[in-house]
Amino acid sequence: MEIAELMREIGERAKESASELASLPTKVKNDALLQMAETIEERRAEIKEANNIDIEAGKRAGLSSAMLDRLLLSDKRIDAMITSLRQVALLDDPVGEIYDMHTRPNGLRVGRMRVPIGVIGIIYESRPNVTCDAGSLCVKSGNAVILRGGKEAINSNKKIVELMQLGGRRAGLPEQAIQLVPVIEREAVNVMLKMDKYIDLIIPRGGKGLIETVVQNSTIPVIKHYDGNCFIYVDEEVDLKEAKNIIINAKTQRPGVCNALESLLIHRAVAEELLKELVPALQERGVEIRADEGVRAWFPELKPAVEEDWYTEYLDLILSVGIVDTIDKAIEFINHYGSHHTDAILTKNYTKALKFLNQVDSACVFVNCSTRFSDGGEFGMGCEIGISTDKLHARGPMGLKELTTSKFVVFGTGQIRE
Amino acid sequence: MEIAELMREIGERAKESASELASLPTKVKNDALLQMAETIEERRAEIKEANNIDIEAGKRAGLSSAMLDRLLLSDKRIDAMITSLRQVALLDDPVGEIYDMHTRPNGLRVGRMRVPIGVIGIIYESRPNVTCDAGSLCVKSGNAVILRGGKEAINSNKKIVELMQLGGRRAGLPEQAIQLVPVIEREAVNVMLKMDKYIDLIIPRGGKGLIETVVQNSTIPVIKHYDGNCFIYVDEEVDLKEAKNIIINAKTQRPGVCNALESLLIHRAVAEELLKELVPALQERGVEIRADEGVRAWFPELKPAVEEDWYTEYLDLILSVGIVDTIDKAIEFINHYGSHHTDAILTKNYTKALKFLNQVDSACVFVNCSTRFSDGGEFGMGCEIGISTDKLHARGPMGLKELTTSKFVVFGTGQIRE
Repeated sequence: MEIAELMREIGERAKESASELASLPTKVKNDALLQMAETIEERRAEIKEANNIDIEAGKRAGLSSAMLDRLLLSDKRIDAMITSLRQVALLDDPVGEIYDMHTRPNGLRVGRMRVPIGVIGIIYESRPNVTCDAGSLCVKSGNAVILRGGKEAINSNKKIVELMQLGGRRAGLPEQAIQLVPVIEREAVNVMLKMDKYIDLIIPRGGKGLIETVVQNSTIPVIKHYDGNCFIYVDEEVDLKEAKNIIINAKTQRPGVCNALESLLIHRAVAEELLKELVPALQERGVEIRADEGVRAWFPELKPAVEEDWYTEYLDLILSVGIVDTIDKAIEFINHYGSHHTDAILTKNYTKALKFLNQVDSACVFVNCSTRFSDGGEFGMGCEIGISTDKLHARGPMGLKELTTSKFVVFGTGQIRE
Repeated sequence: MEIAELMREIGERAKESASELASLPTKVKNDALLQMAETIEERRAEIKEANNIDIEAGKRAGLSSAMLDRLLLSDKRIDAMITSLRQVALLDDPVGEIYDMHTRPNGLRVGRMRVPIGVIGIIYESRPNVTCDAGSLCVKSGNAVILRGGKEAINSNKKIVELMQLGGRRAGLPEQAIQLVPVIEREAVNVMLKMDKYIDLIIPRGGKGLIETVVQNSTIPVIKHYDGNCFIYVDEEVDLKEAKNIIINAKTQRPGVCNALESLLIHRAVAEELLKELVPALQERGVEIRADEGVRAWFPELKPAVEEDWYTEYLDLILSVGIVDTIDKAIEFINHYGSHHTDAILTKNYTKALKFLNQVDSACVFVNCSTRFSDGGEFGMGCEIGISTDKLHARGPMGLKELTTSKFVVFGTGQIRE
């Protein structure tokens, strides 16, 4: 079959499923998620077998060991998929909630009802567990989903979707609530990005290159998940011991993730005192420091930071450190070099805390805590499908609510307009 | 100057203004709006003069009388612009509100703060009053705006923007908060639609052709404002007198607008009784009825409706009328032929009212009132920049809140992640 034709059929089936899913009782959706967990548990061996085909092909294709690791579905990772399915079943159903209800002078009651978006397309790279996570969140929020995973993971993804469909069917979920694009040709993505008749939202998950291609070519709204080049600014009025703890935590607790600290700005008045303790503490933990001239005046042995460093999300044990003379300079610097993901100020001063909150143009702005808290789970949302660096529809961690839209509902008693 | 260069400069200036606007006190924004009203009042003659140049050029170019009417800035319309500026000054400032605040088990306080989107691009057709309305709503919500009006209205738009800038300046508004694309070349739109580095959101206001071009070419998120092909479904359990009033109001009170009724579906059990009174009442008011076979069985003299009629937003005194046997058929029909704008059910039955609210996939779904209430003002939003037929970010009437986004704000006391 032609790819365009295949994709159109997938789109049609998704749209049909979406309208069924929209009014499916919560119990059916939850049962479906539990049945999916059950089915994956029962037939775990098949997933490992399919994954092994991908791993072997990846080795032959010369994938790096980091890429092979991302591709691998160990028993522990399959367990995590199962646990996650059961957890999503426990979350509150966002669909159907009516909010902002108010009565107009003419007696009309006007409110908004939370409803699914419709059909969501997810385009992602190597990790096959995204298939399960994204699929389950879409189902729980009443959306049909079209998944397009990386070509290296095609066999793993096919098997995971097959088992999720099977589990869903046992509970009465519409047949095609979760679909995978079953071909690896790039053309399928190009076609998918123009399917605005069938798909309501595209979420790309992966590197900058992938996201940019999607944005350039899509006629469907896209919610982007770009880098987290996170900054901390240490104000002059600060508890230095607390600051040291927070910085070490933000940089070293899990350096490979988007909410880890990448750049540190310190007010000149406290810089030397803080750095005297912080530099050795970071170095002990294996952190390479790249310092501006101000820092190197005290610590000439540190590697100098170049312009590019301030733009860089290292995802590694590297930290750029600079000195600023005012909070205004810090805010300007962060808005210029940061990636508008998550930035924090450490201060005891009320006015400066508020100024930073108001003026730093980022999805998440923190006072006196680690940037590592930028996460749907930590924010109490129960889960996340990603962290949007976009400003429209969803900004910051995206949970189930962010996978819904609303409609205005109006309860009248015969009103006509004068 | 090259158009690309010109547009880049406009983009840069808008982005600079946006960051100033974001933290501008409400009082400055309100004063600016009042000063704009004042300046337009004082220099009304200049607007009429500029408008006259457009009108004369339009006549020479052979514009239809309807188009010339849309272009005309009469004293009454200038008064309306002035009133609207003053009203927007009176609305609550949406910026800075903190909501959804909650405390996590570790003591972090997590909330969301409403902030401006940044730079908004508005692309519209002939009416020059959109210049004033859109400009004022963007300023009030703390956004910089780049306006691209129709080429027929270029002189009127230039003058309006000049006076708004002047008024704004008197109150201390950033110089380039409101900018107009000063050239009429189409290329300017093409360049504008790729300026994702400077513009955060594009709102096209105009016909389907304009909106489709924008969607196809924009790399910036677009919120679409498509047609309102509004339906009413009259259930069998209904107050017929109330139904007749509502239908007449929805169809005839102002037929040329997007929330006017275009298609009517009636349950077979009450159709004959309702139509006996409704058909002559509508005809008396000049409404042409296009009827399906079911209706024509009773009223063979009515013009038959063809397939295309059910898709059509007449914006005129025309109504398509059909018979259905069940509410399910009505919902299916509306979801298929309607434009997902505003649809209403008239019923006394609780279960059917809820079913219709849940299953009709439209931005606004009403029970027992006229579709004409689909309007930001009528919903208590104070104003509207349009009615979004999109599902993301804003759906239905868009007021000041819909011109904002949010950021997560987190208040910590030294928390680190374990």
